[in-house]
Amino acid sequence: MRQAVVNTLERKLFYIPSFKIYRGVAGLYDYGPPGCAVKANVLSFWRQHFVLEENMLEVDCPCVTPEIVLKASGHVEKFTDLMVKDEKTGTCYRADHLLKDYCKEKVEKDLTLSPEKAAEFKHVLAVLDDLSAEELGAKIKEYGIVAPDTKNPLSDPYPFNLMFQTSIGPTGLSVGYMRPETAQGIFVNFKDLYYYNGQKLPFAAAQIGQAFRNEISPRQGLLRVREFTLAEIEHFVDPEDKSHPKFAHVAGLEFLMFPRELQLSGESAKLVKLGEAVSKGIVNNETLGYFIGRVYLFLTRLGIDKTRLRFRQHLPNEMAHYAADCWDAEIECSYGWIECVGIADRSAYDLRAHSEKSGVPLVAHEKFSKPREVEKLVIVPSKKDLGLAFKGNQKMVVEALESMSEKEAMDMRAALESKGETNFQVCTLGKEVVITKKMVSISMEKKMEHQRVFTPSVIEPSFGIGRIIYCLVEHSFYTRPSLSIPSTHDLANRKMNNSMSSGSLLLLLLSNALCSPW
Amino acid sequence: MRQAVVNTLERKLFYIPSFKIYRGVAGLYDYGPPGCAVKANVLSFWRQHFVLEENMLEVDCPCVTPEIVLKASGHVEKFTDLMVKDEKTGTCYRADHLLKDYCKEKVEKDLTLSPEKAAEFKHVLAVLDDLSAEELGAKIKEYGIVAPDTKNPLSDPYPFNLMFQTSIGPTGLSVGYMRPETAQGIFVNFKDLYYYNGQKLPFAAAQIGQAFRNEISPRQGLLRVREFTLAEIEHFVDPEDKSHPKFAHVAGLEFLMFPRELQLSGESAKLVKLGEAVSKGIVNNETLGYFIGRVYLFLTRLGIDKTRLRFRQHLPNEMAHYAADCWDAEIECSYGWIECVGIADRSAYDLRAHSEKSGVPLVAHEKFSKPREVEKLVIVPSKKDLGLAFKGNQKMVVEALESMSEKEAMDMRAALESKGETNFQVCTLGKEVVITKKMVSISMEKKMEHQRVFTPSVIEPSFGIGRIIYCLVEHSFYTRPSLSIPSTHDLANRKMNNSMSSGSLLLLLLSNALCSPW
Repeated sequence: MRQAVVNTLERKLFYIPSFKIYRGVAGLYDYGPPGCAVKANVLSFWRQHFVLEENMLEVDCPCVTPEIVLKASGHVEKFTDLMVKDEKTGTCYRADHLLKDYCKEKVEKDLTLSPEKAAEFKHVLAVLDDLSAEELGAKIKEYGIVAPDTKNPLSDPYPFNLMFQTSIGPTGLSVGYMRPETAQGIFVNFKDLYYYNGQKLPFAAAQIGQAFRNEISPRQGLLRVREFTLAEIEHFVDPEDKSHPKFAHVAGLEFLMFPRELQLSGESAKLVKLGEAVSKGIVNNETLGYFIGRVYLFLTRLGIDKTRLRFRQHLPNEMAHYAADCWDAEIECSYGWIECVGIADRSAYDLRAHSEKSGVPLVAHEKFSKPREVEKLVIVPSKKDLGLAFKGNQKMVVEALESMSEKEAMDMRAALESKGETNFQVCTLGKEVVITKKMVSISMEKKMEHQRVFTPSVIEPSFGIGRIIYCLVEHSFYTRPSLSIPSTHDLANRKMNNSMSSGSLLLLLLSNALCSPW
Repeated sequence: MRQAVVNTLERKLFYIPSFKIYRGVAGLYDYGPPGCAVKANVLSFWRQHFVLEENMLEVDCPCVTPEIVLKASGHVEKFTDLMVKDEKTGTCYRADHLLKDYCKEKVEKDLTLSPEKAAEFKHVLAVLDDLSAEELGAKIKEYGIVAPDTKNPLSDPYPFNLMFQTSIGPTGLSVGYMRPETAQGIFVNFKDLYYYNGQKLPFAAAQIGQAFRNEISPRQGLLRVREFTLAEIEHFVDPEDKSHPKFAHVAGLEFLMFPRELQLSGESAKLVKLGEAVSKGIVNNETLGYFIGRVYLFLTRLGIDKTRLRFRQHLPNEMAHYAADCWDAEIECSYGWIECVGIADRSAYDLRAHSEKSGVPLVAHEKFSKPREVEKLVIVPSKKDLGLAFKGNQKMVVEALESMSEKEAMDMRAALESKGETNFQVCTLGKEVVITKKMVSISMEKKMEHQRVFTPSVIEPSFGIGRIIYCLVEHSFYTRPSLSIPSTHDLANRKMNNSMSSGSLLLLLLSNALCSPW
């Protein structure tokens, strides 16, 4: 099936391997004429469905991005994959890919495997994404994995940053990167956009544009590429009120959902009413639920088969530590279930990071009609005592203390008062530390306030346009079944039918995207 | 005027200096919500006017481009500006900018200037674009020009490549660049596109996308930026038949044209009928003329004031040596006459360059209904004799000989037979050489041919979308005139009126682009 689709697509110039006459570059593809037409229609429908229908503020930022922006966002430090090198030829591989291939091969093909060993390999496959560089390296050594092409020994795994690096201006001193996502361009504009929107929340900004990831060794053909079109929405909302006025419009939708619990218990996705998923707390809040519903409508109206579309919730270990909840729209194709849209509640992480780095407060205000007496949680870490106790880790402990919720802080105060000390989980350190009474003072103070100043939360639906188009093509592809034993004539016919009239897909999309009355 | 426009645009978030909270990056701008809407409408109208109405093949290629493609196109070697460095601080300047500023300042402000000196400075300004690195350096020394900010001495001028460089893949060995234009992505796909078009000429391919130029020191605000959207058309045509079947549709158009002769004689642009310009040979051929007409219609339908739009022909020294003819659509705004669209007949240069570098023939075929006896020009350079005479320059002389037209070759043969030797201009060497009789054999031979194989010529209209939008805004901008001496109240009013309703411009564009019946 996949080969038939890919052959048809290349023969009809939907896609062309880029720079083909120079033998191409892995992970880079052109859209040819019919691919371009489909892409233009998909983007135009996206703009209609999200930007225009929801009154979003669209922006268009450059791909070239100065280092400081991506330092603030964490990409310079953390946007990496673990790589190993063939120690003789220098060829690079993704460490997790090699380990995955090895374990899969063993489980699927080694008939002499003991049940214990089989269970071990399956366990490795399950926790693959969580392994550290050291753990991956140890496994590669233990299993004696070598370079697949040459059988040479491999280096230890080390992180490789996936951003394309460049230099801005003629001096060579100003480092820049090709953006790995479009979102950061929106975050740094939050202040202007908030004023443009009359200083009212919630509002959403959107951006369509190219993003770049210098993959170590692109696999999966058209699905994992080094340059791709993203369409991203950043919906800014009061963290204390994540209701959505139009949630009722989507609450009745019923579709395949795959919440954490079902994944952990080994069950499969099941049909759930969106309204129930939110009211039962399976989906964290109404706004997140609203966007899940809108994404479902977008994809199915585009032509994605709803029986091969599911919304899968991230497991705790998949999510960034700051994320409140995250769901992927996954579409089933010949590569399996593919993440095509990510819908995440990123809390206030991004705006806080850019506020800190730039010194420009990226906050919203809620003016009170009359001043209010408020009880305010005041957490004052004693930097001196914390410094003595934690040395270089002091900063992370301080940040963790300051970002405690009211409940956490009150629990800690009670514990400190009764026992003098308490254990405290510092996520950024990945461990618990012991906090004693003199290290922090926690109190509730009464104040008169005229307004509330807060950092908005961000709900981010992020669309991989190329992946959606590829899945759309697979879902629209059919081969006319042959009724008799194939004759030459019949084979010739089949070849023709295989070729899926690009025109009909275009027409289908055109009629879907432009003429229907939603 | 300009300040009022720019203030309004920034206040209304048409444009935002990119990464503003980090104090921005010179030459990078975001489009904010109204700017984005205008851009989407302009692009949609462009697609309607060119791609759909002319049945062009649209493609969409990556920005990341491997080095070999841009070596073939000449960009790695020649896409440079001359730069000088402040010898103490390392700050970089464009050498021609500094010389231009110096000469302009002298001519405009130095009242003690002798007429001879004034004439000299004016001459320098006129030939500025043609000066070599050595000549520029000599002038900078002669005039004692120093770094504008520090008054430190300057380095000699040296070429700085304007492409953003990066590295593809994890090894660091594969150099890539962010494309400086979208055209190369089309040229390398010529073979596939030609087959897609049923092996028929003429046809056009088109591409809309980002392009990147790492300017040394961006000036002119929104007009000279480091990343911008280009919309380019490559129209492939038989070099022996550049007629256009729809030329009659535009032959009657009359607009401001500024041919070479008028520029050289110091006159200004004048109204010319397009049909006459082509029939009189002012415009090289019908296809080039057709696109000039279509560009005129595109820009004026978009809202560009036709009295501030002219088509200026390149002077011989502005054109690439291979170009047959080139016209710029220039729009007048507060920065002067700005090149917004270039329309060039690039002959067969690009396809030949990629054929040579890749070894893949990028050619077209004309099949004859019955075999034809043809007289074929056969030029056989004697590499031995040429090598002895020209050593390292041999290759360039050979290429120049082989690319002679029939007339040039016949003239040379006559000269060689009568005088035994002749002078011959080799453009790539920039000088004349002496060719003797034994260095080359030239003859006309009769052959039976079933088809003609040739490299198509390319006519390339290339649109700077950002510049067009900026000029469109200036042409749509007005300030309500104040009737009395400004009072505070009146000033406040004026400020409001100044702010040009972005809505009305949007509506105007929407109605132009989507609803009108052309």
